Amino acid sequence: MPLLPMRSAFDLPAGIVYLDGNSLGPLPHVARERIAQTVTDEWGQMLIGGWNAAGWMDLPEKVGNQIGRLIGAPPGTVTAADSTSINVHKVLAAALQLRPDRRIILSDTGNFPTDLYMAKGLIDQLGRQHQLKLVEPEDVSSAIDETVAAVMLTEVDYRTGRLHDMSGVTKTAHDAGAVTIWDLAHSAGALSVDLHATQADFAIGCGYKYLNGGPGAPAFLYVHPKHLDHIEPVLSGWLGHASPFDFDTGYRPADGIGRMRVGTPPILSMASLDAALGLWDDIDVADVRTQSIKLSSAFIEEVERRCPAEEISLASPRDADQRGSQVSFRCENGYPVMQALIVEGVIGDFRAPNLIRFGFAPLYNTEEEVRSAARTLAEILRTRRWDKPQFHARAAVT
Amino acid sequence: MPLLPMRSAFDLPAGIVYLDGNSLGPLPHVARERIAQTVTDEWGQMLIGGWNAAGWMDLPEKVGNQIGRLIGAPPGTVTAADSTSINVHKVLAAALQLRPDRRIILSDTGNFPTDLYMAKGLIDQLGRQHQLKLVEPEDVSSAIDETVAAVMLTEVDYRTGRLHDMSGVTKTAHDAGAVTIWDLAHSAGALSVDLHATQADFAIGCGYKYLNGGPGAPAFLYVHPKHLDHIEPVLSGWLGHASPFDFDTGYRPADGIGRMRVGTPPILSMASLDAALGLWDDIDVADVRTQSIKLSSAFIEEVERRCPAEEISLASPRDADQRGSQVSFRCENGYPVMQALIVEGVIGDFRAPNLIRFGFAPLYNTEEEVRSAARTLAEILRTRRWDKPQFHARAAVT
Repeated sequence: MPLLPMRSAFDLPAGIVYLDGNSLGPLPHVARERIAQTVTDEWGQMLIGGWNAAGWMDLPEKVGNQIGRLIGAPPGTVTAADSTSINVHKVLAAALQLRPDRRIILSDTGNFPTDLYMAKGLIDQLGRQHQLKLVEPEDVSSAIDETVAAVMLTEVDYRTGRLHDMSGVTKTAHDAGAVTIWDLAHSAGALSVDLHATQADFAIGCGYKYLNGGPGAPAFLYVHPKHLDHIEPVLSGWLGHASPFDFDTGYRPADGIGRMRVGTPPILSMASLDAALGLWDDIDVADVRTQSIKLSSAFIEEVERRCPAEEISLASPRDADQRGSQVSFRCENGYPVMQALIVEGVIGDFRAPNLIRFGFAPLYNTEEEVRSAARTLAEILRTRRWDKPQFHARAAVT
Repeated sequence: MPLLPMRSAFDLPAGIVYLDGNSLGPLPHVARERIAQTVTDEWGQMLIGGWNAAGWMDLPEKVGNQIGRLIGAPPGTVTAADSTSINVHKVLAAALQLRPDRRIILSDTGNFPTDLYMAKGLIDQLGRQHQLKLVEPEDVSSAIDETVAAVMLTEVDYRTGRLHDMSGVTKTAHDAGAVTIWDLAHSAGALSVDLHATQADFAIGCGYKYLNGGPGAPAFLYVHPKHLDHIEPVLSGWLGHASPFDFDTGYRPADGIGRMRVGTPPILSMASLDAALGLWDDIDVADVRTQSIKLSSAFIEEVERRCPAEEISLASPRDADQRGSQVSFRCENGYPVMQALIVEGVIGDFRAPNLIRFGFAPLYNTEEEVRSAARTLAEILRTRRWDKPQFHARAAVT
């Protein structure tokens, strides 16, 4: 019996095709149950004792190790903590510590904006001695030279799904003496990432997309073991202290990945992510990747067969090996088209200026529903059902 | 009919006297219900649409304003975000921006360690041009001079409950041209804080103590309105951007307090805090303070009447006006005594080297149970029931 999809493990409203798990994964039943347990039986009954008795204090490490298994990171190298943005700050500051004589942070125009914003804030804070150099995604490797301290990239472009060659770029960076930071927001739980094999220096990512941890679930952070004991955390909080409950006035970092923790973690959100990760216990990420390619390829085929090429054109790489677990199409009236799709039960999203974006999560998406979504899209375009005033009104979050 | 205590609004296990709400507030029923709703009806049914339809995007501001009412902060000056530690980094970096020619961060040995650790990390990051100067709590005012950039203090000492004169210290700081940062972790929801009247520049605090937001609930952060538009956030994340969903590659801070947001907030934990804050809608914090003083005074009176002075002595200020909402006693065998108390249903905590600590939360604590807790303590000391091997074994979190 195939393990995938395990759709019945999720709360998914009847009648919808959910192709936005790359923004927010749906609710696993085990997460719902676990949150209720954490609230009622742990917080409610154990009160402060929950930190020990319910294992709250160890959750960041436990969750980190579960994520580590999905991204090829050895135990003790990943922690769940804070938000992806804040983790960018931590690992970028650490990367610059490792290359004190270099001044360039290299990234690309396809990186998710918050990574760039956080780099800008850090550069300002460090007295503007560093420079954030942005190149087009295809020019990254040729832009790496011995002035580059850190190459900071998101493996999967959040708009187009274009995939960087993590292994190749990391090797080029290392050959030039630079360190690498990989944002795995759209990779963890969707692609066969092997951090250990690629020898990436740092990685960060998101708990609420393909990992289904819930809205604003804690993010994660990986540090290559060879760097762990050389990093002086810049966000040096008490839960990264070697002995937080000694309440020393002086800071001493914990051994290992624990030093990348900062403050008290949001336990309800952390417990939800922990439970959601349990779904992966018997899953091989390679199978997920295989199935993801089947789904995205079927969607492209079905859309291109049914929709007029003058209205919609593929923005994602056609070669599945160059593509993450999402597909985007350029579509002139993309915003209202997506609103019409949502009303008809096909949930994707829109990214300016003209991309309609669809994510594929093999844990719950089926080929049948993906083909059905493409047919709905074709129908909406054919009948121009998108051309209604209410579909043009922009929401706060798009 | 008196509003306080509203004990029936909380899940409190039968037979315990919970005097550790200054570490982790108990579970309000409304929080339990709200979390279930957020999980099942919002995440489960609305999926990505919850950011708009369930108001998730606006929660940090909404929660911030609710907390603002309890600490004398005008609407639009407080946001709920991240952890207290990370908020220390944000406001301290902002404070140093406001005083670029000054090099001293003044704090005291009674500050909570993570505040000091975060200051150390920031100083290292800024190239060690600044110095963290620690003085004894009673020497703070006399140590303020024109070299001080920022005075960073916790209003209520986490060990002894000793209270700083927020208004007086802030005035002394301002007279010397320094800015002030107040950690309200043990103040919000317990004391009559009036940030606006004291003209404090920055404040931070905790959502999981007297505000009952749940384990690791989001922290909060206040910026005086006069500073808001002059701060360049160093943790410049996308949710602090003026238009996050434009996905610009360049950072532009949002107007007002919104710029102090960083990444995607943990919605389950945020919703819990939001619901818990609803309990305060009809509460006047001045009444809470009055009742808190009654409770702590009754506890001191009862303990001192019943316990031998050679075994236990008051570590907190005897003058209630000098004391927060907690009472600590020095007790030679404090650790096992506290474990024995916990086993007998009186939950307080221990702080090294020898303090047993009891917090008083008028929302659910009653004078009767406080006096009963003192009697239990006296009995444990009289019978030496604390002197058992199991009470000496240290737990990870104390």
